[in-house]
Amino acid sequence: MSTELQLYTYWRSSAAYRVRIGLGLKGLECVQQPVHLLEGGGRQHAPDYAALNPQHLVPVLMHGRRAVRQSLAILEYLDEAWPDREPLLPDSARDRGRVRALAQLVACDVHPLNNLRVLQFFERQWNVPRDERDDWVRHWIGEGMGAFEALVADDPSTGEFCHGDAPGLADCCLVPQLYNARRHGMDVAAWPTLARIERACLALPAFRAAAPEAQPDAPPQVA
Amino acid sequence: MSTELQLYTYWRSSAAYRVRIGLGLKGLECVQQPVHLLEGGGRQHAPDYAALNPQHLVPVLMHGRRAVRQSLAILEYLDEAWPDREPLLPDSARDRGRVRALAQLVACDVHPLNNLRVLQFFERQWNVPRDERDDWVRHWIGEGMGAFEALVADDPSTGEFCHGDAPGLADCCLVPQLYNARRHGMDVAAWPTLARIERACLALPAFRAAAPEAQPDAPPQVA
Repeated sequence: MSTELQLYTYWRSSAAYRVRIGLGLKGLECVQQPVHLLEGGGRQHAPDYAALNPQHLVPVLMHGRRAVRQSLAILEYLDEAWPDREPLLPDSARDRGRVRALAQLVACDVHPLNNLRVLQFFERQWNVPRDERDDWVRHWIGEGMGAFEALVADDPSTGEFCHGDAPGLADCCLVPQLYNARRHGMDVAAWPTLARIERACLALPAFRAAAPEAQPDAPPQVA
Repeated sequence: MSTELQLYTYWRSSAAYRVRIGLGLKGLECVQQPVHLLEGGGRQHAPDYAALNPQHLVPVLMHGRRAVRQSLAILEYLDEAWPDREPLLPDSARDRGRVRALAQLVACDVHPLNNLRVLQFFERQWNVPRDERDDWVRHWIGEGMGAFEALVADDPSTGEFCHGDAPGLADCCLVPQLYNARRHGMDVAAWPTLARIERACLALPAFRAAAPEAQPDAPPQVA
């Protein structure tokens, strides 16, 4: 039943973007429930949403009445609940370890340092000026993407995509992170392997349909 | 062969602590290769270690000549490479999603904000005073552990441990994070379910043997 999946999402959330890509790669239809992270002090802090996710973060996937939280957990859930669809993870423990490590490099060590709640903390608690907040963001993207590039550049397991010639979990994380890099004025050409993989990804409908600008809750001026 | 596993570790690293617990729960022997994160400007930045992990972070698990990076990826690797040992994850996609989300709450949304490289950035780049750095650490631990408590407190899937009556992936992440909370002067009694689960964990040899103070590279005064 196509309407049994609902995604609590925000157009520019990097974590929600990952899940939208994964849903597209698995060919799963999903109803979007936008949660505006800036309006009204942030709709993620509203009591009904906080009851769904006490972390006050997007995304949350509803599968019927079951809530699945955390973007990487959601992506693995999709893979395990729909094993007949194109896999997001390879078969062997070794290869799965490689793909998960690349995904976690982004999801643990880059994105959480740069997300909205952290930047709001700097602005509101520490009065960090805008240009220093931007330096912070670029610093961690640079550290993380430099390491990602080193890990995929000369590895024979890298193919057209992060792992082999089919897109998967690592690509779901890489593309939104490069989108963030570009949004902060960084040149993705600094990471030639990542830039090449990004081009391969963006040639696929699942990645294009998941892009922030393509979302129903994107403001009209960016769509 | 018991010597085929080697863990690049640091006694007080929360991420390495998780993996040490997992190795113990799986009953796997492992040779420790300590990487001193403070000495000599940080041994994780030495060229030979950076070649092993371009992120300059611990832990890295070597399984023979194969490197597995990222603590959660390592724990899932152990589970998949030794399926005959006690599992770290439950069986169903639903339950696995719940456990992974709890683990990622810690590994994505709490710990990366508070680790050494971030606190060094604040000190060296922004001259943030010690007490404000401590406030930062406590803020994110408080946010994360409060949400963790809410997610497990009234959930029938919670048992003696985070999920049911056997320890697993979420417990591997919870216990080191509560250790960090205590180290920063926080009272874990604020999270009664987590405190109860921690007691159950610390009654087990695998958790006690993995504790920072029990490591060969811990300084004598804490051992």
